[in-house]
Amino acid sequence: LSETYFAPRVTLDDFEAAALTALPKSAFEYLAGGSGYDVTLRRNRSAFDNVEILPRILTDVSSLTTKVFFFGREHRFPVLMAPTAFHRLFHLNGEAETIRGVNQTGTTLVASSFSTTSFEDMQAASTRPLWFQVYVHPDRGFTRELVERVVAAGAEAICVTVDLPTNAARDREARAGFEVPPGMSRVNLERLSANAAHALHSSENGLYNSVRAANVTWSDIEKLRSYLRIPLLLKGVLRAQDAITAQKVGCEGVIVSNHGGRALDGVPATFRVLPEIADHVGDTLVVMCDGGIRRGTDVLKALASGAQAVFIGRPYLYGLAVDGASGVTRVIEILYAEFAMAMGLSGCASIAEINATLLLKRY
Amino acid sequence: LSETYFAPRVTLDDFEAAALTALPKSAFEYLAGGSGYDVTLRRNRSAFDNVEILPRILTDVSSLTTKVFFFGREHRFPVLMAPTAFHRLFHLNGEAETIRGVNQTGTTLVASSFSTTSFEDMQAASTRPLWFQVYVHPDRGFTRELVERVVAAGAEAICVTVDLPTNAARDREARAGFEVPPGMSRVNLERLSANAAHALHSSENGLYNSVRAANVTWSDIEKLRSYLRIPLLLKGVLRAQDAITAQKVGCEGVIVSNHGGRALDGVPATFRVLPEIADHVGDTLVVMCDGGIRRGTDVLKALASGAQAVFIGRPYLYGLAVDGASGVTRVIEILYAEFAMAMGLSGCASIAEINATLLLKRY
Amino acid sequence: LSETYFAPRVTLDDFEAAALTALPKSAFEYLAGGSGYDVTLRRNRSAFDNVEILPRILTDVSSLTTKVFFFGREHRFPVLMAPTAFHRLFHLNGEAETIRGVNQTGTTLVASSFSTTSFEDMQAASTRPLWFQVYVHPDRGFTRELVERVVAAGAEAICVTVDLPTNAARDREARAGFEVPPGMSRVNLERLSANAAHALHSSENGLYNSVRAANVTWSDIEKLRSYLRIPLLLKGVLRAQDAITAQKVGCEGVIVSNHGGRALDGVPATFRVLPEIADHVGDTLVVMCDGGIRRGTDVLKALASGAQAVFIGRPYLYGLAVDGASGVTRVIEILYAEFAMAMGLSGCASIAEINATLLLKRY
Amino acid sequence: LSETYFAPRVTLDDFEAAALTALPKSAFEYLAGGSGYDVTLRRNRSAFDNVEILPRILTDVSSLTTKVFFFGREHRFPVLMAPTAFHRLFHLNGEAETIRGVNQTGTTLVASSFSTTSFEDMQAASTRPLWFQVYVHPDRGFTRELVERVVAAGAEAICVTVDLPTNAARDREARAGFEVPPGMSRVNLERLSANAAHALHSSENGLYNSVRAANVTWSDIEKLRSYLRIPLLLKGVLRAQDAITAQKVGCEGVIVSNHGGRALDGVPATFRVLPEIADHVGDTLVVMCDGGIRRGTDVLKALASGAQAVFIGRPYLYGLAVDGASGVTRVIEILYAEFAMAMGLSGCASIAEINATLLLKRY
Repeated sequence: LSETYFAPRVTLDDFEAAALTALPKSAFEYLAGGSGYDVTLRRNRSAFDNVEILPRILTDVSSLTTKVFFFGREHRFPVLMAPTAFHRLFHLNGEAETIRGVNQTGTTLVASSFSTTSFEDMQAASTRPLWFQVYVHPDRGFTRELVERVVAAGAEAICVTVDLPTNAARDREARAGFEVPPGMSRVNLERLSANAAHALHSSENGLYNSVRAANVTWSDIEKLRSYLRIPLLLKGVLRAQDAITAQKVGCEGVIVSNHGGRALDGVPATFRVLPEIADHVGDTLVVMCDGGIRRGTDVLKALASGAQAVFIGRPYLYGLAVDGASGVTRVIEILYAEFAMAMGLSGCASIAEINATLLLKRY
Repeated sequence: LSETYFAPRVTLDDFEAAALTALPKSAFEYLAGGSGYDVTLRRNRSAFDNVEILPRILTDVSSLTTKVFFFGREHRFPVLMAPTAFHRLFHLNGEAETIRGVNQTGTTLVASSFSTTSFEDMQAASTRPLWFQVYVHPDRGFTRELVERVVAAGAEAICVTVDLPTNAARDREARAGFEVPPGMSRVNLERLSANAAHALHSSENGLYNSVRAANVTWSDIEKLRSYLRIPLLLKGVLRAQDAITAQKVGCEGVIVSNHGGRALDGVPATFRVLPEIADHVGDTLVVMCDGGIRRGTDVLKALASGAQAVFIGRPYLYGLAVDGASGVTRVIEILYAEFAMAMGLSGCASIAEINATLLLKRY
Repeated sequence: LSETYFAPRVTLDDFEAAALTALPKSAFEYLAGGSGYDVTLRRNRSAFDNVEILPRILTDVSSLTTKVFFFGREHRFPVLMAPTAFHRLFHLNGEAETIRGVNQTGTTLVASSFSTTSFEDMQAASTRPLWFQVYVHPDRGFTRELVERVVAAGAEAICVTVDLPTNAARDREARAGFEVPPGMSRVNLERLSANAAHALHSSENGLYNSVRAANVTWSDIEKLRSYLRIPLLLKGVLRAQDAITAQKVGCEGVIVSNHGGRALDGVPATFRVLPEIADHVGDTLVVMCDGGIRRGTDVLKALASGAQAVFIGRPYLYGLAVDGASGVTRVIEILYAEFAMAMGLSGCASIAEINATLLLKRY
Repeated sequence: LSETYFAPRVTLDDFEAAALTALPKSAFEYLAGGSGYDVTLRRNRSAFDNVEILPRILTDVSSLTTKVFFFGREHRFPVLMAPTAFHRLFHLNGEAETIRGVNQTGTTLVASSFSTTSFEDMQAASTRPLWFQVYVHPDRGFTRELVERVVAAGAEAICVTVDLPTNAARDREARAGFEVPPGMSRVNLERLSANAAHALHSSENGLYNSVRAANVTWSDIEKLRSYLRIPLLLKGVLRAQDAITAQKVGCEGVIVSNHGGRALDGVPATFRVLPEIADHVGDTLVVMCDGGIRRGTDVLKALASGAQAVFIGRPYLYGLAVDGASGVTRVIEILYAEFAMAMGLSGCASIAEINATLLLKRY
């Protein structure tokens, strides 16, 4: 095993480097890659470089707290685990292993509808209520059935993903010849029509995906909102106007997201459009953000720009791939420690003190 | 044969990489190179990075169509094959092979006046009407004779190239010692005076080219327009004022072009000047654009900036060099698939929905 | 020994290159590294590239002088040695060797409270009065005791560091496994409670540092000012408003500093924020600046932007590591010679002639 | 001999690459290097990238002429050979060989006062009148004597260099251990006091140079102007205000120059400041420019920005080093051909048509 593999893992990126060794190439490419030339994927990270932090000095940070409150519950710190598919690609135990790692950290995982473990089993293993991510499926009845199932199982909030109406140009997957291995199925979707459930790869070369509907509109969101008894977040918002509409149709929150750079390559970094969206709906909606968060200072910048919380996706999967539940825990704890230091060194003793006056645009 | 050669060809650029292996160095350099230090060549591509796409969400794209209509005919999607010279440099069958590939795709090829196959033979092999590109030759009578010949043979439109009044600094050709091989001639020009027809390389070290006139003015364009019975497009426009004049002298269209970075190195990327030109003449002329188009999102950005269609040149020749007609077809179909995904993922169900509100300038 | 090691050392950076060879990796990483990804560390240097110098021609510089006056004394040129910890990491003789080198140059060293030699011994070895850097310790009584001790020993000014209320993400130290070697202690802090004095590394993985207080506020600075009989400079100022407050609580000067990029990664380069701070308090406070100064032109730019003097830190330690006292002297003399040339070539015969009209923003 | 050495030399930069092989390292470093980190040296070139050329189409360029008129004489094209020292470093025959090469091209050489051949011998070998570059020496009487000598020998214009009142940080020379070889002397300065004539290197480590005065002021320029019977150009102007003063004291021209990046590193690129200077004095003075000119498009951009002519320095010396007089000729003819093509392709049939409307700022 190479020296790099055993080098101390100090940052979240070290887990990506280790995962490159730990995973088969095709699984790594599926996980690490974005779409197209990864332009948006890279910009999600580089956008954070466009602002600098101007610390407040000589404030008392000796009782610093990272605690934050939303959707009726206190969270240890404003970072959640984004919904990600097919954890069994990265660890034999799949989502069960992830949850063991997350359980140690006091953070919340958003279960993906494309998990290789049923939501019910995931929730049973979790010490905290999970959130659930869902697509609007061509079969709207199934969509409702699925959502009601996860609510019954204890889901705390629903994130409906709206940024993938057609397929995307997943170049790195194509080059690596990635396919979901036989026997690894999206168990939550089993009751979906057999045709649709098996159609993921048969339709990959085409425009449409048999599992995700291409004709989803705002009226679908209104309908979802009408029968749902828990908070609904719209995931995949990049325009302020869409966030305003989300609020009008009754959503409790929006997630500023470009699907981690995996949908349309060439869309803006989430951090680039976050401030305008937060300016428009920050008072009435819970605004969250994902994409490119790797350091505590990224979290601080996103919060100072109007997000109430952020998500990480790939990093905890790199942890999972490299070291199972311990890796997941370690990734989250590194980010926690960095965020606390970023708060302290910028003179913020509580989340409420993090605001736009901390930021300076680069010239 | 190297692994790279057989790696899956997922994007248009993969065909360039494969062509590097497939072609003699001098032919590759002639094809891939621009002029000078390739500054404009590179900027043609990088200019697309200056805008980002802001998708519209929750629009119904389940009946997406890429069809577009101009010059009296419907086109499958808004991409044409730019005029390019000497196809026999890239395949033994030359233009005949190209046409076989294009025929499979429902797209339109612009035949170059510098082809190694006569326009008549090219049109006979083509399942759709070709367009024809022409220079104003020192012998204006020959120019008219040539244009009337191709119209008689079925040409659908004429593109007159105006951006090469003198020779250009083709450094990469010079370094590679490129010369058109003996026996490969520009058959369309055979009736041009013998002196001129053979003078291409004898005059390459000088300022003037014996085949292309250096004293072409707007009155030549007016004259051409006066005797021509099919649409005339001015190719090589970079200034809005010139597009306005083109409209005044009766042109039906302009092609925003810098000759693929092969004329004067240091001129702007076409995508950089396209919006201003489209703003000025987009309502009265068909505005088209070439230069650096390699991905579906490039096509989308050009259309959103005011182009009605775009051209690709080098990519289909890379396809020709690598895999003959099949390569040509594959290049076009990849671009088609990417463009359809770009439309769907940005929420556009038809070409008419693609406009400037999709774009965001990068900061 | 490699050729590089013996290559002529022409610039301050050559000493960094040589130190990489001369020092154990962990000591080099401790010295050269910043925090996080070294973003601020690098920007401290690159920020100087954002302005250009517009020389004045045909001025008489035949009697050029670099002399400058502040805090009651003339200085040979406006560069001081920044406070840096643990010199015994870089040379067996530690601070004593540094002082031998500085003594040759007519410049002033700021002794670090984290030195491996007591301030009293350092001052005794120095031919000029030293300045002293201090943190506000959790034990405020000890802080006062320490400050009064160094004043009694002859300190000329006190710099109180305020940019490290919590620990920072010292990634490079963590990767290199850096620890202060056994037997190398911060002797100035010996009278601090035993628990605190030994706690540096035991608490490195946590948020707080037992030696540096996390609850330091402006009232601590007021108190320090109230019992101190020599000039007090606030070190770690990045906001104009904080400089104004520093003046209000009685400080004589501010040092625009981000701890050499070692505190919060992602804060602005000092040269980026210097002009605004100097504009606000330059008339009433001594404004100084550290961070990224490596060339004579950097000194000139900082002075033209409103600093009365600048500090170098790492460079003289590279000199110390590479060649002991001679190395320290050589580093300072190279910078002196470069600064004199920069003055002459920009047409400045005295420090007073260096002002903002010399600078041109880059576009 | 390496393949690179014999590769076709297509551009001026190819001669630099060849000179790297042809010259001893120390001579190459002396020639190719700037000062400091070569920042200004590189910016002299990159500044040309900040504007693009917007060609005029459909203009008649069939009778294109590059001829230009200034100081009472027609020049073949607006490029002169900048004054450069010590040609014997680059060719055994020194300046005599250079002149043989220049004679073939119809261009004008500015003889350096630091030549290894006397001005009289250089002028005798030249088929056209030379210009002469001079410093104001500490011995003002010698300065006058020298200037009157060269005027008597036939000099057509005098360029007085004002951007080097003190020495500069010639890092690359220092690293390479460059010294002028024994027996290679500045023969024009022989009558200067022996002390000064031999002092070049003895004083290199210090601030002042015994040959170039540090107390030169505008009154020296006025005095020079008062006794000089030929045009006087001030070389080393970077500020518009200095150009205005130059005009007031009677200079006929200014050369926007930063000494090829060899004086103060960190000053602006000449092309960056040229437009403002030309705007202020272009109507009353001959404005010329040197620095970073390597391509025909650079010449065109400089003229479009207000220069009446430009200079090249290093390139013809690379030609000299690589291939003697033939190399010098070839370098100049490549630039001539490129410039003619740049004019033609941008639609300019004469120098008068080159103006700012050709240029487009990059965004």
